[in-house]
Order: sequence, then structure tokens, then C-alpha cells
Amino acid sequence: LAEFSLQELADKLSLSYQGNPNHVVTGVLPLLAASSSDLSFCRSEKQAKLLAQTQAGVVIITPVMAEEHPGNALLADDPQQALIGALELLHPKARPQPGVHASAVVHESVQVPVSATIGAQATVAAGVRLGERVVIEAGCSIGEQTVLGDDVYLAPNVVLYDHVSIGDRVSVHAGTVIGSDGFGYHRLGYTGPWQKVPQVGGVTIEDDVEIGASTTIDRGALTDTHIARGAKIDNQCMIAHNVYIGEDTAIAACSGVAGSTRIGNNCILAGHCGVADNLTITDQVILLGKAAVSNSIKEPGMYGSGTGLLPRSVWFRLVARLRNLDKTIKTINQKIGDKNDK
Amino acid sequence: LAEFSLQELADKLSLSYQGNPNHVVTGVLPLLAASSSDLSFCRSEKQAKLLAQTQAGVVIITPVMAEEHPGNALLADDPQQALIGALELLHPKARPQPGVHASAVVHESVQVPVSATIGAQATVAAGVRLGERVVIEAGCSIGEQTVLGDDVYLAPNVVLYDHVSIGDRVSVHAGTVIGSDGFGYHRLGYTGPWQKVPQVGGVTIEDDVEIGASTTIDRGALTDTHIARGAKIDNQCMIAHNVYIGEDTAIAACSGVAGSTRIGNNCILAGHCGVADNLTITDQVILLGKAAVSNSIKEPGMYGSGTGLLPRSVWFRLVARLRNLDKTIKTINQKIGDKNDK
Amino acid sequence: LAEFSLQELADKLSLSYQGNPNHVVTGVLPLLAASSSDLSFCRSEKQAKLLAQTQAGVVIITPVMAEEHPGNALLADDPQQALIGALELLHPKARPQPGVHASAVVHESVQVPVSATIGAQATVAAGVRLGERVVIEAGCSIGEQTVLGDDVYLAPNVVLYDHVSIGDRVSVHAGTVIGSDGFGYHRLGYTGPWQKVPQVGGVTIEDDVEIGASTTIDRGALTDTHIARGAKIDNQCMIAHNVYIGEDTAIAACSGVAGSTRIGNNCILAGHCGVADNLTITDQVILLGKAAVSNSIKEPGMYGSGTGLLPRSVWFRLVARLRNLDKTIKTINQKIGDKNDK
Repeated sequence: LAEFSLQELADKLSLSYQGNPNHVVTGVLPLLAASSSDLSFCRSEKQAKLLAQTQAGVVIITPVMAEEHPGNALLADDPQQALIGALELLHPKARPQPGVHASAVVHESVQVPVSATIGAQATVAAGVRLGERVVIEAGCSIGEQTVLGDDVYLAPNVVLYDHVSIGDRVSVHAGTVIGSDGFGYHRLGYTGPWQKVPQVGGVTIEDDVEIGASTTIDRGALTDTHIARGAKIDNQCMIAHNVYIGEDTAIAACSGVAGSTRIGNNCILAGHCGVADNLTITDQVILLGKAAVSNSIKEPGMYGSGTGLLPRSVWFRLVARLRNLDKTIKTINQKIGDKNDK
Repeated sequence: LAEFSLQELADKLSLSYQGNPNHVVTGVLPLLAASSSDLSFCRSEKQAKLLAQTQAGVVIITPVMAEEHPGNALLADDPQQALIGALELLHPKARPQPGVHASAVVHESVQVPVSATIGAQATVAAGVRLGERVVIEAGCSIGEQTVLGDDVYLAPNVVLYDHVSIGDRVSVHAGTVIGSDGFGYHRLGYTGPWQKVPQVGGVTIEDDVEIGASTTIDRGALTDTHIARGAKIDNQCMIAHNVYIGEDTAIAACSGVAGSTRIGNNCILAGHCGVADNLTITDQVILLGKAAVSNSIKEPGMYGSGTGLLPRSVWFRLVARLRNLDKTIKTINQKIGDKNDK
Repeated sequence: LAEFSLQELADKLSLSYQGNPNHVVTGVLPLLAASSSDLSFCRSEKQAKLLAQTQAGVVIITPVMAEEHPGNALLADDPQQALIGALELLHPKARPQPGVHASAVVHESVQVPVSATIGAQATVAAGVRLGERVVIEAGCSIGEQTVLGDDVYLAPNVVLYDHVSIGDRVSVHAGTVIGSDGFGYHRLGYTGPWQKVPQVGGVTIEDDVEIGASTTIDRGALTDTHIARGAKIDNQCMIAHNVYIGEDTAIAACSGVAGSTRIGNNCILAGHCGVADNLTITDQVILLGKAAVSNSIKEPGMYGSGTGLLPRSVWFRLVARLRNLDKTIKTINQKIGDKNDK
């Protein structure tokens, strides 16, 4: 367990402080869960009223909050940012030992850097290229000719198909699949057997992307599916063939983006969003939870969908009204003599 | 294959019966699929009309239904409950042989109970604690310091990260991931690179929880994500960091609960529900399929969202109306002189 | 790398052509990405304007398009169909070498055809039957008594539970789980512990089905969950216990079908659709993205749900209006003297 005095934390995080420089903390907990051996933090003015109740040995607060809170504190203009640094000190992440586990199956053509870790039961196919300090955890499967940059981290049971290209400092959580075939079929007319369209593109994932657990990113049909630098994709997401996700765009859990759609930079998709195929979403679009996007979006801003949540009986009456809404409004407008209704 | 006479079933299930005590059944099938060597059951008065058509050798019915159905029958006030007992007799689940498969990789620090089973290609890291009769199927990966209670069952390819705590009699289906990092990032302003907030909490899963396949449960940011006793979570669900799921709450497939939300006891979420972050849902709330929850719920009861399903042309006109609904109603109310409209 | 002259392609695909029969192509790219060593294609009249800009060495076009485009071309009434043939020639899929990898764990009772491939770290349990040319990629787990037909392809880390029956030419993408327990529980009343209903049915998947990555198909409660011939199921889908999916029905990503629902032949479900339990959907139904189906559908055709996407402020006003819509319309109709409103 790591332990740091207030003085040491202030020095390492380049922050000023108030209180007892020798007070030692060994962990980080929320304000109401922290004890005197814990560091805590206050994210917002709204939370600041909890400061009076906390038992935390040290808190990270803004200089403004400090005026009301005289105890041990690190002073940061952005407490959340300072918290990240403190967490890295107090909860340092142990990197697994470099080396190839005896049970891993690595094709003889693969050059494994001395700094890399390949875990138990992992499989690495022919022609795979591995960067420095790559970690491939237990049970991962890496397909032929796939390339991992430096400091890539693959959690257990990740599957990368062949011809996937992953940049530096990319993390992929457990069970995620990258490079599966896109959903491409063709048939003549409206019934009968589908013919598979071979999916011969790959996947390109740029630097500093993080991908959650049990997410799927399909390979492109002809060219690559593409996740740009810094994008963050949560668990249970689906990125279809030939999608482009822009830089620093964040996609929350259970969202799906259909084929060939292009999402701009610095967008945020909340949970359970669905974006239809062949659309273009401009930069800095924010989609609220469960948004359903069936047209391109040209203006930055926030967008939402849905009726909101209603008690069952109110909802049932609403659904009945909606079924006839067009007609109802037409009738009303006729009665009241509005000629503008189309 | 197991086989039981009507008399034996009645004895073992502590039920009364009517008909031939020596009639033997070897399986369980629905009323219309069953033959004379099968047991069947009638769940409700509504289904009771099918009794006249069934070829089942024995049926489980209520005493009231028995008045109209003179054949071989087990009499139960709750036929569904009796069915569970009968299924356990006629389809006993074979428990895998205890022992550690030669291909499993178990860290030397782990004490494996003689009653436990660790399947092929599984990986168990340092410091893991295993209860009695634990079954870890093929390809599972268990991270450091994770704890499994007695009678835990992990289906193939389950991934538990480090510091996950699982109670007794918990089952987890294939491909599910527990303990992946929460989706926590920070940035200054609205564009540019995200900084990862280290996710240093764990996951606590209490006794008698069952979790479906390909579900993800993220670890907490500072404290634990928590699934309380008896909760049932279906396939493809997403439980985000620091969520609390109450006792005996059931969450159907494809539902997601966002960060730090607390769901009470005895709730039911139907499929594809989405609950936003930092909310509190009280006990005994039932969310209908695809419900979208963006505010806390203080009253027990049933809630729903959405427009219902409409034929495409009707739906298109509805969407067009909704786009202007606020304005339309304002205009109408002006015309008819309603001053109360806001 | 494969390479073909225009003449060779025309011969092998039984198409007529125009231009230089000796022009050689080695790959396939979209019109605007292709260079003179690439084949490209034009899917629709709408795309035909791009023909003037393409650098592609050969294009697949219709005879009608050819009237305006005098360059090297394969002439096909259905360019998409011809493209499939061309992709199979220019990007032939390498089948893995037959044989059982030394690290695979195959129960001694299993007869592995000489033509079959079992990859590294795979596990095949007792009583499994394997067809000719089956490929089981790395990390798959196949449960007892499961049957795979000829030419079945399982991508890495697929889990098939016991008693799953898979037909010929079925492909399953990485991480998908077939045969997990259905979500079946019972309790008396509305609170308290759930009792598990043992799920003793299996799963039947007919010939020519393709299933995407990280999809889950639960086993039946008493009888089998059933996917009929030619159905295509995308990534991240959920098929619950005792569902029936009809022939040539295609289900796009993130869709879920709840227990015992029967979906007809030649249906299409777009992404994120949800179909409630115990419904019957007739043949040739098309559900648009995020459709929510809570009643059976008796008429073929297209159906949709939802409010569409709106800018946040417009959406918030809409949600407020919908909350009171029933009352609002009632009030208006009273004011204007419409007696028909119920």
C-alpha cells in the first residue's frame, strides 16, 4: 500500500496546501466514506456542503472552498484533475511482468519485444507485430498480420481478428472483439437467401483510444473501419463496418453506430444511442441517452429523442393519442378554421 | 435419463395426485408437445383449455383445474413452483468432476478446495480465494485477489478482473465480464484529449445472484459497484461504475444502468431499459421494455416510455407532428382562447 | 496477392465487358479510393456520377451506365452480385490448415474429421459431433453433446453450451454465446427471492445461418430456441429462450427478441429493435431502427417507433407536452365542442 504525507502529495502534484504537512494518507475515498487516513476531494460547489461532514484526513478543494474549510487540504483550481494525479500515486497500477507465459501460443514468425507481456492461454498468429511494453492478458486471440503499437493493453479474452491496426497507448477491455465481419449481404428482391458480401477491409485504431468490455468493432467491407486518436468507447457498444469515429469523441455504453456513418471530433454519445447508416454527424454533437439518429447532423449542439418516462396508465393513454395524433390535429384545425395545416 | 412414476413424483414433491400412480414419465414438455412418457404443466386458467388436447402422461395442475381434467395429474396450488421441483428431478444437472484440469494455469498462491472444479484453459491469478464446490469452466480468467464464495458457478470464458468479491451460490454465464474499468474521464472544457480517471474501486456481488451471458459490470471508481442478494441480471446488460442494484431486483436483457445510480429492492427492468447516471429508483419499480429513465423515481409502480409501434407512413406523419407539437398546441390554444397554456 | 485481367474476370464471372481485356487488377476499392490497379463498382444510378471521377482500372457497372462510361468495365445487371464474385476471386479467404492444435483439449470421445481444424486453447467436451471441414478457432469452448454440421466456422472465443445443434455452413463470430440459460425465474407474489426455473431445452440452428460477434442465444426452457435456415443475426443481439427466428430473416446489431416470440420468414430488424415476449411477427415485416414491438404483427410491411431526433430545447418542450397530451387534447376538444373524443 502506498502512503504519502500532505507535504509529499503537494510536492508531487505541484499544488499548494493548507494544514499539517505531515498528515499521512493511504487511500482515496468519497467525502462521506473517507476516514482520517484517506484523501478525498470535492468536485463542485454543490458538493462543498459535504466538507463539513467529512472525516477525510486531507481533501482536494479549490482555493475558494478552502476559505470555508480550514482543515488539511490540497488546493487545486481543478480538483478532479488533481484527483487523477493523486490516484496514480496512491493506487499505482502494477504492470504485469514482461515475458511470454509457457501456455501462450505465439507463432514463430512473431518477434516479441523483451518488454512485452503475453499472458496464459493467449494466442498470437503469424505475422503479428507487437510494440514495446505491449500487454496481452490471458485468453486473448490475435489474428494474422495484426499490429499493436507501443503500450497497448489488452484485457483478458479480447479477440482481434486479422489485419487490425492498433496505435500506441490503446487499451481494450475484456471480451471485446475487433475485426469481425461487417453485416453485409445481398439478395435480389425482397425474399430468399442472402449472399454474403466478403468483408475484406480492416480496422484502424489510432493512438490513445480506450475501448470498454464486450464491445464489437467490425472490419470494413473494402476499406477500414476507423477510430481516430483519443476516442473513448464504453462497454457493449457496436461500431459497424466502415464507420469513422472522430478524435476525442466519447461513446457511452450500449450505443451503436451503423455502417459507413461518420461521427465528428469531440462528440459525446450517451448510453443506448443509435445512429443509422451512411450519415455524417458534425463535430461537437452531444446525443442524450437513447437518442435515435436517422439523419445527418450539421449543427453542433445537444440532441435527444423519446417521450420521457411516464407512469404506465398515463403512458398507455399517450400511446393511444399518438396513434391518432395526425388525424386529431387535422380535425381540430378544421374545426377551428386553421387553413395552414398541411 | 431419469424416470419417475406419478407416485414417486408426488412423494418427492410433497403433492397429492390423481390417476395411475405407476404411470412413468422421463421428461418434461409443454402441453402440446408432450407425449405419454412426458410430464407437462398448466400455468394458468387461460392455458387450461389446452388440457383437453394434451397427450402428456402426467400434468401438473391446480385442484380447480383438476375438476375438469380427470387424467393423471399432480395437484399443486402453484403449478409453476411444482414444475421447478419436477425439472430438478427429471433433468438433474450434472456437476462437473472436481479437480483442476492439467491445462489450467492456477497461481501457486491459490488454495483450491478438493471440492472445486477448474476447467481447461482457465487462468486463476495470485491471491484468489475459492469457496467450496466452486466451478470455473473452460477459458475463464480470474484476476488477482478476487474472491469466490461457495458454490459459485462460472460458465466458460467469464472474465473476473482483480479485487472482485462474489458471494455464495452466484452463477455467471459465458462471456460475462466483471470488474472492467468504469467509463471515467476528465477534461478541461469541451474539446481536446480526455484524461483517464483511475478506477480503483472493486465489485461486490452478494449471495444468490445470477448474471447472464455477455453482461458487463464495471468496477467502482473509488468504492465498489454493488449487486445485492438475490438480484438477477440477464444477458447483454451493462452495469456501470458504482451502481447499486437492490435485493431480488431482476434486470432483463440489453438494459443499462449508468454510473452511481441506485436501484431499489424488488424492482423489475424489462428488456432494453436505460437508466441515466446518479439517480435513485425506489423499491418495487417496474420499468416496461425500452423505458428511458432520466429522473429519480420515488413512487413504486409501473413506468414506460416511447410512442409504441406504428406502420411506417403513420409513424412518419407522427414524427413530423411531434417536431412542431409545442407550436401547434400553442397556436390552437391561442385560436380557441385558452389563456392557461404556458 | 491475387491478380486478374479484365478478360479473366469476365470469363470467371460469366460477364461481358468493354475495354482492354489485358488490364490487370489486384484489389477492390470504392470508386473514389481506387487506383488503376483496382477493380471498383457502381451500385446505383445515384452513384453513377462518381464514375467520371474514378481512377479505378476496371469498374463493374450496368449496361445502362456503360453507355455513359466508355472505360474498362465488367457489365452486370446486378453489379453488387458481380462484386461478390469478384471479391471471392481477388480476396480469397485462406482456410486454416486442418488438424488439432497441441494445446486444444478435445475429449477422447470426440471423433475429429481429418478435414476439421481445432485451434489453440479450444475445448471440446464429451459427446460433441463435428462435421467435415469444421473450423473451431482459438479459445472456443464446446459443451457436451453439441453437434456441428459440415463447414461450420466458429471464430475465436465462441462458447457453445451443451446440447446445441448447429447445421451446415453456419458461421459464428467471436465471443458469441449460444445455449446459456434463459432468464426464467418464479416467485410467489411481488417481492422476495426468485426461484430459478431449470432451463432444460436446447438450441437448434439450421443451415446457412450467420451470427455476429458478442451475440447471445439462450437455450429453451423445455423445448429448443430455434434459428431457421438462412437467418442472419448481427453483433450484440439477444435471442431469448424459445424464440423462433424464421428463414432468411436478418436482425441487425443490438436488437433483442424476448422469450417465446416467433418471428416469421424474410423479416428485417434494423439496429436496436426490441420485440417483447410471446408475440408472433408475420413474414416480411421490416422494423426500422429502435422499433419497440409490444404486440403481435399480422400484416407485412414497415413499422417504426419513436419521436425522431430533436434539438435539446425542442425535445424538452415536446416531452413536457407529451406528459399532458391526453389532457390537452381533451380540453381542446371540449372547448371546440367535439363530442367524439373519448
